[in-house]
Amino acid sequence: MSTQSPPASPEADPRVRAVFDDIRATRKTDSINNMWRYLAFDPALLESTWAEVKRVMATPSALDPLTKEMLYIAVSVANGCGYCVHSHTAAAKARGMTAAQHAELLAIVGLAGKTNHLATALQVPVDIAFDQG
Amino acid sequence: MSTQSPPASPEADPRVRAVFDDIRATRKTDSINNMWRYLAFDPALLESTWAEVKRVMATPSALDPLTKEMLYIAVSVANGCGYCVHSHTAAAKARGMTAAQHAELLAIVGLAGKTNHLATALQVPVDIAFDQG
Amino acid sequence: MSTQSPPASPEADPRVRAVFDDIRATRKTDSINNMWRYLAFDPALLESTWAEVKRVMATPSALDPLTKEMLYIAVSVANGCGYCVHSHTAAAKARGMTAAQHAELLAIVGLAGKTNHLATALQVPVDIAFDQG
Amino acid sequence: MSTQSPPASPEADPRVRAVFDDIRATRKTDSINNMWRYLAFDPALLESTWAEVKRVMATPSALDPLTKEMLYIAVSVANGCGYCVHSHTAAAKARGMTAAQHAELLAIVGLAGKTNHLATALQVPVDIAFDQG
Amino acid sequence: MSTQSPPASPEADPRVRAVFDDIRATRKTDSINNMWRYLAFDPALLESTWAEVKRVMATPSALDPLTKEMLYIAVSVANGCGYCVHSHTAAAKARGMTAAQHAELLAIVGLAGKTNHLATALQVPVDIAFDQG
Amino acid sequence: MSTQSPPASPEADPRVRAVFDDIRATRKTDSINNMWRYLAFDPALLESTWAEVKRVMATPSALDPLTKEMLYIAVSVANGCGYCVHSHTAAAKARGMTAAQHAELLAIVGLAGKTNHLATALQVPVDIAFDQG
Repeated sequence: MSTQSPPASPEADPRVRAVFDDIRATRKTDSINNMWRYLAFDPALLESTWAEVKRVMATPSALDPLTKEMLYIAVSVANGCGYCVHSHTAAAKARGMTAAQHAELLAIVGLAGKTNHLATALQVPVDIAFDQG
Repeated sequence: MSTQSPPASPEADPRVRAVFDDIRATRKTDSINNMWRYLAFDPALLESTWAEVKRVMATPSALDPLTKEMLYIAVSVANGCGYCVHSHTAAAKARGMTAAQHAELLAIVGLAGKTNHLATALQVPVDIAFDQG
Repeated sequence: MSTQSPPASPEADPRVRAVFDDIRATRKTDSINNMWRYLAFDPALLESTWAEVKRVMATPSALDPLTKEMLYIAVSVANGCGYCVHSHTAAAKARGMTAAQHAELLAIVGLAGKTNHLATALQVPVDIAFDQG
Repeated sequence: MSTQSPPASPEADPRVRAVFDDIRATRKTDSINNMWRYLAFDPALLESTWAEVKRVMATPSALDPLTKEMLYIAVSVANGCGYCVHSHTAAAKARGMTAAQHAELLAIVGLAGKTNHLATALQVPVDIAFDQG
Repeated sequence: MSTQSPPASPEADPRVRAVFDDIRATRKTDSINNMWRYLAFDPALLESTWAEVKRVMATPSALDPLTKEMLYIAVSVANGCGYCVHSHTAAAKARGMTAAQHAELLAIVGLAGKTNHLATALQVPVDIAFDQG
Repeated sequence: MSTQSPPASPEADPRVRAVFDDIRATRKTDSINNMWRYLAFDPALLESTWAEVKRVMATPSALDPLTKEMLYIAVSVANGCGYCVHSHTAAAKARGMTAAQHAELLAIVGLAGKTNHLATALQVPVDIAFDQG
């Protein structure tokens, strides 16, 4: 069930082909997951989305690749995006996330969910000491 | 503005006093931030919340303290908890988060927010390959 | 700070006046809280919103008034609506909510926030036994 | 999987029958989608919900029908309601939404999701110039 | 589809066995629902989560068991957790929630969802009268 | 209160200066709102965010500028981003949104919020007819 049909032959479009080739090269895999197959209904949206994912997630940076995937999972859980939770948990495991690390991630995400609700329920005023600007 | 008055003399209650002492000892600071001052209206809720925060966040574990604070920020942003974003950004900075790391965290959180919305808008079906059980 | 100016003399409009009079009569108070003052920029929106609040919240029904207010708080916390958390916590206290009941409400809301995050992070499949239709 | 069984013969109840007849007449279709079939377990809830949907969405107004459906999609995506995303995307397509417009809607919704997260992460103070009241 | 395999023989682990035994004893049932089967991949997370659920939800307290389950549903709906909505609606029905009460719960949750959005859209300032501290 | 100090002299950095100049030219105004002043702590994040906002929101496209701003508001309300609700409501008014259109936008956003909660509470199955792929 989806709200747009993925193109039957997406790589017949050279713009889609170029993105899919770059995904395969960047990830060193032959597999293109559904997110990209479905975004291919609009090549411009596919291109800009992949370009940002590649720049933010697949470029060496101040944070290591596993930490980045765990941060992605954390946001996706809080936003309730089942597809994203699945795809980024798979990515985190591919980058070495152990079951113990997964459990700890869940413990933090669950605790944050809890204290987010408590702080909102109490409407706790922000401490002056936290202000940065 | 809050929905409960924080106790005027919270440490007159020995249960609150014990929690505050443990916060000061664990964090090596004299300061008790508002979250705990406001939760003190109910000592049992204060005790159980602090015990979980201490166990999950302040105990050596598979993830380093800065990563844990960044995960907490990620969830808090997605849940829209202003207090929590403030308090855990301050905690992350206290654990060494640089401006460059903060910017990268924001780039990931923003991108995840975007692709969460795209996947939900398309109702992309989960790839069989992602299933773990 | 708001996105619409509340009318300077809202009750000059007879439709607004009628709603405000009904709020005062229903709630047995002279005070009109800001939600209604700001909604008054559009009398039709004010009328339909108040009519629903009165029907759902201020009509004797299968649930008692305090339970109804606590359910309203629970939703408002999870949705992160600060105004609504404030107004319905005040309403719940006006209907007799004690500090102990408030603390218990918070404990449930916080726990639900936590397990919501855990179930989403694990993508736990729904038990067949839970299906009702 | 649902939390309430839809009635086996919903139109045996004259209140449900009247709502279903009005849905068919208003939408010029014989089909009643699941939202209404499931809400039919409580005729009063069905009546009030349909009356509001008809008044807000199916009455000529300041916004054209396609814009209204796209706004509905935008909210439903941000709230993570899969059913609503599906039903209102179908409705928008029935009102003429092209694939290009759908892609642009997704680009806006995705961008808003991203900058919502950035503004929350930075806790950007509201500009005085934006205040309307 | 899930992000962690539930253990094939969870009760081979004595810590898991002890939790499952306590769930069966507390709930007076032989059935262990999926939430606990999937959390069993990490016995420590299973233990701490169940301990909190038991303490908050299954201990006699200021709120009756049905009210507590309805509050849990309210939060879970607003957070969009399908699993949790299913499991706690089943629990509420097991504690006697009638179809009329369920309909009223839905009416309140739906109305709160609506006015939460209205208050946020207007950015209504909190009334001074609501401040508790 | 924010989590990063905005640079005291942001335009001393030529990358920030270039973005600010482009914002002023694109919007035909001398004013730079806080979102951009705060993002300026990281020129790369500022550049990529503005580039996307300009491309999606300020380029002639299939949707008119006012519709685009209203969609942005709808998402921002559902995500609970106060800053974004303020800034995009101001932008929509600058593009001609009348009070009547604002009220209708609120009526749709509020109704969507309500039915999103109802569909989630009932866990209504998606109609086969809605599937697009």
